[in-house]
Amino acid sequence: MAVRFELLNTDPTGARTGILHTRKGSFPTPMFMPVATHAGFRHLAMEEVKETGAKVLLANTYHLMLRPGPEVFERFGGIHPFMGWDGAVLTDSGGFQIFSLPEDRLITEKGAHFRSFYDNSRRLLSPESSIAMQQAINSEIMMVLDVCIDSRTDEAGTREAMERTHRWAVRSLAAKEAKPTGQALFGIVQGGVHPHLRDESAAFLTKLPFDGFAIGGLAVGETKVERDTMTERATASLPQDKPRYLMGVGTPTDLLEAVLRGVDMFDCIIPTKMAQQGYAYTFQGLVRITRTVYQLDDGPLDPECDCYVCKKYTRGYLQHLMRGKHHLGSRFLSVHNVRHYQRLMERVREGILRNGYAQTYRELKAAIATPKDLKDEAAASAATLKDVG
Amino acid sequence: MAVRFELLNTDPTGARTGILHTRKGSFPTPMFMPVATHAGFRHLAMEEVKETGAKVLLANTYHLMLRPGPEVFERFGGIHPFMGWDGAVLTDSGGFQIFSLPEDRLITEKGAHFRSFYDNSRRLLSPESSIAMQQAINSEIMMVLDVCIDSRTDEAGTREAMERTHRWAVRSLAAKEAKPTGQALFGIVQGGVHPHLRDESAAFLTKLPFDGFAIGGLAVGETKVERDTMTERATASLPQDKPRYLMGVGTPTDLLEAVLRGVDMFDCIIPTKMAQQGYAYTFQGLVRITRTVYQLDDGPLDPECDCYVCKKYTRGYLQHLMRGKHHLGSRFLSVHNVRHYQRLMERVREGILRNGYAQTYRELKAAIATPKDLKDEAAASAATLKDVG
Repeated sequence: MAVRFELLNTDPTGARTGILHTRKGSFPTPMFMPVATHAGFRHLAMEEVKETGAKVLLANTYHLMLRPGPEVFERFGGIHPFMGWDGAVLTDSGGFQIFSLPEDRLITEKGAHFRSFYDNSRRLLSPESSIAMQQAINSEIMMVLDVCIDSRTDEAGTREAMERTHRWAVRSLAAKEAKPTGQALFGIVQGGVHPHLRDESAAFLTKLPFDGFAIGGLAVGETKVERDTMTERATASLPQDKPRYLMGVGTPTDLLEAVLRGVDMFDCIIPTKMAQQGYAYTFQGLVRITRTVYQLDDGPLDPECDCYVCKKYTRGYLQHLMRGKHHLGSRFLSVHNVRHYQRLMERVREGILRNGYAQTYRELKAAIATPKDLKDEAAASAATLKDVG
Repeated sequence: MAVRFELLNTDPTGARTGILHTRKGSFPTPMFMPVATHAGFRHLAMEEVKETGAKVLLANTYHLMLRPGPEVFERFGGIHPFMGWDGAVLTDSGGFQIFSLPEDRLITEKGAHFRSFYDNSRRLLSPESSIAMQQAINSEIMMVLDVCIDSRTDEAGTREAMERTHRWAVRSLAAKEAKPTGQALFGIVQGGVHPHLRDESAAFLTKLPFDGFAIGGLAVGETKVERDTMTERATASLPQDKPRYLMGVGTPTDLLEAVLRGVDMFDCIIPTKMAQQGYAYTFQGLVRITRTVYQLDDGPLDPECDCYVCKKYTRGYLQHLMRGKHHLGSRFLSVHNVRHYQRLMERVREGILRNGYAQTYRELKAAIATPKDLKDEAAASAATLKDVG
């Protein structure tokens, strides 16, 4: 197997901790994967990301297909030497980006036809071309191309998308097997907000030789309750010995909820995106650094954090940078937020290992969410998600 | 004295090398001071700036007076702990910024009256308030408030501005002496493009107990020949035992020219500003990284450079970042350019120490300027200077 999942412990709550073995190393789960969309972060150097403890990064196939294109990855020997990252990389397939494209895209059984917004050239993203691009990128974990839909789609429409997702999953596997590269491939469970479709999707996909399974089609407009229910339903149908990845989720609270439901892997742009908007996640709640109260504050963002920003810079200075819209401020808040997510996962893993996740969950949930800040966060998250590329 | 200049050698060309002793350490000259306008760089962390070898940073009094304001510096104990810099800091006085303000400013004998563009509050920047702000910032080297004028101003207007600069210099000294802080104060030689006014200004100022002397009112629209002539004229009248600082200059070639004329200190936004526009200075000439020829180039920006960007990243990757307008690209090019300026000064100092600056000058000038790139540079510089805040 290109990746192997070693389950270390399942907590009484159902939360799991384990080790994901990849060709780039073995990494503990639950894990959070920061998003390096364009083979890079907007503000962070790879050295800084590595220092946060992140081991696996996510990169976006759709964006990298358009720029810099497969020939650049072929020339440089893949994404790792290109962007200077010696950890592991997971690539999404482009399914979510097709879903977000403007109306002039055309999705057929073959794939998604659209025009590049760089040069207006005609492009096809199909199960096969997505795998080919992910092979050029040379990620450790590839994802199948799936059909994403609005969560408000009716059952017939949801079934249609799910069944196409299944046919594309089979084609993705065939494309992968036609050119063995040592990369892993994950299937994606779809089925919208319909529990029996989620069951059916998991049943279909788990019969295929995937290295792991993602839960897709969430974080696209459903309610929190729907998301939690669908996550629980999907993980219940997934095998114990394969990693489970909840795509595109979420806030620290979302992660705590999904871990409770047996999820092992996460990615989300929230920690870096919120940083750019002046928000820092701390173990005392969300901090909006531009608030006047922080102007003369000589304390760190989070006294419980060990990132270099918390060790060296004050809230007062960070406010100065963010009020002045200096990119250095976004960079510093990004470093902190990415480290915070890693620290959160560390605490989660510790809790699960000693069969105490119920307590960890309660303590962390209370610590990170204060009512006022939660309101800020909800508003900012909503703004953020509209902005996802 | 708050700073002391130790002259080590004067080369047959007239180029000088020495040591500037400050309370934050002793630093070799000629030196280039990167510009941290708002108590910070747009993209660079202080650790990165320190790694380039820069020892003294410039910060802008006008900007810092408006935001974050003197009370913040008083609260944090000055600019060094605030921005996390343990080297030395030179603050300009705000004279150049007053000159660049929109028309509704009013400059009287008392000082410059204007409105803050943050909150529209009425402000006065006078010789005394400039010193008070620089004392709050707690820089190692303060500058007197001077009257900057367009270099095309006629002789009568130039004389008027120069004489006010002299009166303000006397008031600045008095303000400094009224509250001893251990900070140094430099006078600024004015006189536009009129050689005898430059003589007169230097003669007046050098009778006063300044710790060093700046040459002001250049890099504001005069020709290269005028700039070189005025620089030479001013340094000829300045004492050997005090440091000479040419304000706001310039490109690598400009620095080579001014060193030839006996200048010891420089500051300029060009290395970071040009980086943001995709330009890298190298010892093989100026590189516009977005040129298609670099797309598949797996070499470093400059094989002669030892910055971490040149050690780790390829031209191909830097192009990818800059074409995508990722701030990480501006950051990486800034790191390189700031290091390049420091390397340039290292080579200049080596040349002067062994009485071989004439050769160093010829070799470096030929190496860093290729005709095609010079054209690019001139165009970019012009665009850049329009944009100075």
